[in-house]
Amino acid sequence: MAVISRLSVNGDRLMGWIERLAKIGRLPNGDICRLAFTPEDVQARYQVQQWMMEAGMTVFNDAAGNIIGTYGGSEENAPALATGSHIDTVPSGGAYDGVLGVLAGIEVVKTLQEQGRRLKHPLQVIVFTDEESSMVGARAIAGMVPRSPADLKLRDGLEIETCLENVGGDWPTIGTAQRTRDQIAAFVELHVEQGAVLEQSATTIGVVQGVVGMRRSTVTIRGQANHAGTTPMTMRQDALVAAAQIVLKVKEIALSTPNDPVATVGYMTVAPNAANIVPGEVVLTVDIRDLSPLGLASMQARLEEGLQAIAAATDTQIHIEPLLDVAPSPAAERIQAAIAAVCEELRLSHRPMPSRAGHDAMEMGRITDMGMIFVPSQMGLSHSGREYTPPEDCIQGANVLLHTLLRLDELYA
Amino acid sequence: MAVISRLSVNGDRLMGWIERLAKIGRLPNGDICRLAFTPEDVQARYQVQQWMMEAGMTVFNDAAGNIIGTYGGSEENAPALATGSHIDTVPSGGAYDGVLGVLAGIEVVKTLQEQGRRLKHPLQVIVFTDEESSMVGARAIAGMVPRSPADLKLRDGLEIETCLENVGGDWPTIGTAQRTRDQIAAFVELHVEQGAVLEQSATTIGVVQGVVGMRRSTVTIRGQANHAGTTPMTMRQDALVAAAQIVLKVKEIALSTPNDPVATVGYMTVAPNAANIVPGEVVLTVDIRDLSPLGLASMQARLEEGLQAIAAATDTQIHIEPLLDVAPSPAAERIQAAIAAVCEELRLSHRPMPSRAGHDAMEMGRITDMGMIFVPSQMGLSHSGREYTPPEDCIQGANVLLHTLLRLDELYA
Repeated sequence: MAVISRLSVNGDRLMGWIERLAKIGRLPNGDICRLAFTPEDVQARYQVQQWMMEAGMTVFNDAAGNIIGTYGGSEENAPALATGSHIDTVPSGGAYDGVLGVLAGIEVVKTLQEQGRRLKHPLQVIVFTDEESSMVGARAIAGMVPRSPADLKLRDGLEIETCLENVGGDWPTIGTAQRTRDQIAAFVELHVEQGAVLEQSATTIGVVQGVVGMRRSTVTIRGQANHAGTTPMTMRQDALVAAAQIVLKVKEIALSTPNDPVATVGYMTVAPNAANIVPGEVVLTVDIRDLSPLGLASMQARLEEGLQAIAAATDTQIHIEPLLDVAPSPAAERIQAAIAAVCEELRLSHRPMPSRAGHDAMEMGRITDMGMIFVPSQMGLSHSGREYTPPEDCIQGANVLLHTLLRLDELYA
Repeated sequence: MAVISRLSVNGDRLMGWIERLAKIGRLPNGDICRLAFTPEDVQARYQVQQWMMEAGMTVFNDAAGNIIGTYGGSEENAPALATGSHIDTVPSGGAYDGVLGVLAGIEVVKTLQEQGRRLKHPLQVIVFTDEESSMVGARAIAGMVPRSPADLKLRDGLEIETCLENVGGDWPTIGTAQRTRDQIAAFVELHVEQGAVLEQSATTIGVVQGVVGMRRSTVTIRGQANHAGTTPMTMRQDALVAAAQIVLKVKEIALSTPNDPVATVGYMTVAPNAANIVPGEVVLTVDIRDLSPLGLASMQARLEEGLQAIAAATDTQIHIEPLLDVAPSPAAERIQAAIAAVCEELRLSHRPMPSRAGHDAMEMGRITDMGMIFVPSQMGLSHSGREYTPPEDCIQGANVLLHTLLRLDELYA
């Protein structure tokens, strides 16, 4: 039977590695705190390099501190196929976010090594530096590092020079980390979904269509603070009434736009913020995400029109200021097709879906063909010690990664 | 001609007094900071007592620190007619709020003294203690002082015992400050409107129908904090979306209830309050004010129904907790009629209106017949150094107070 002869990763080994890495930075409450550039990050990097070397890879660190493990290919001068993710966490993270993609990549190589098998292309596993904050690793490879360190979103109090030194990088020469399509023909990242779409639709594999883009703005509403007793309803310039209309408008814009974009007012402050004073000023943020650049632009335009109408209706002044503008990063059609074909072959349920969180693959998509494979997150929980993906889903994800890379090895020159 | 013979206050003297008192506690930016119990309050009290004595009044301080000036009447054992207000301010107050009512009361007595005229009833001018925060003065006269000092809304860090000592009061015997209808037959307070109704309707005198009651509640909305990228719109339990619906519902309830009640969400906090997280919890206050107890109860019931519907529609849990419940204090019909008749006699435009701010008269209305006279506040500004009432309005208000007291002297036994 074909099923028996099909190549599979060693699931027990993969799960053992995940368990081992989860011990580094584990807090008493079960959360994992393995912030980039800290001793815990370095300890985890050291461990991962050991596994890479044991799988027959040559390992080096680039100037951004990215760890790049290479498993040689059979054809001379072929560009690499690459996979990978990150092993740093948020301050209270879980065991799967990032880690799964790195360790599944190494497990894929280990499986090939045990079979004495090589691809035509070199196969690289990349551990990207500081995905959870500055994304300096992926941005360096994509040639997208800002000139000024001040524009890198480092955690408070850190200096990029020292940070990179800690992990084998070098800020002055960070430009040397940049790679091109000639060097990496394709990049595929396996990651936990960090949402509940797969679980709720009882699907095993998400075939990512791309990483959504984001428009984030600050909206300031100026009305007139006034006595909540003596100011008649019809004479008010209530900044919070205007803000409430904006919150509902933002939701309506997302719900009425095709392809399920999301839009959120997550931050709001009210002044003077007293029970007996009509609010005079409100500041809030609007965060809009969509896979389509046109969708983003259309939602932003509808938001701005909406703000004008609300300002007129509430007798307030409303000002909008851009905070972030990140272009969507589409996944390559042929990688999406390869992942879907592998799922069919392995008889795994699958569905196309956007990634609405940022990932290293987002930056990789700016320089080469990119694809992502999602596996379910239980209850959609993420950035928490309670983050969980069952072992069978982790292992199936790794097998999809393995077979996708085998297909890409045929597809790419 | 009748006009010539009609008794009038000395407007220049009244405005001179207002100007003199405004110097006590004036800040460089023009605001006045004369907080109750501070040296500035004591200095202002000392000055006001001088003016009372010069107007032929006997002065004493009750156990709540209220200053009570009495101008003797011609009939033995008659109860007093009383007027007055307060001379303390908010931290950045103006020259008229409270002060006008006190000084116009003294000016009325001074005018009678100059004419060698006495009423049948003793005429009392009361300076109430700490109107702007605890209202301990008016509440003591009304017998409404809470047993525990903790239930008095004193400014942070103050102790009532020391506060009252500073202004000639005595906390242990504060019960002796209570007065009854047998002692005060009627109380009339002149005050600036602190709103823009009179100015916008080009009316000189507001005949107050009563001081509105208030229901204030804290509303807590619990949803689910979640990733603003990976959580689809249809799977959110967004506490801020629920809060926005509540803000608009509160406004709609006030606008659709007869007799122009007001309702305000003045305070709101959002958690975790980050641009990239769907809000998990919002706490807000709802403040509802109306002259009619039935109106208040009906609005509160509609609010609670609304919260249930919003909780169901947004998949959140909403909890409401009462914070304050102050009954409306209606003005006596015959005092309203007397004020209106005086306005007709003096050919001043007038209109009935509720007082939507709290006043000492609110507490006085709990023990005796109460009335209030409002004069315009320019642009409705209040609790600000920019608070302003033109001299002619102050003086006309004082004349309406004078003639109203003359009428009440005939009306009351």
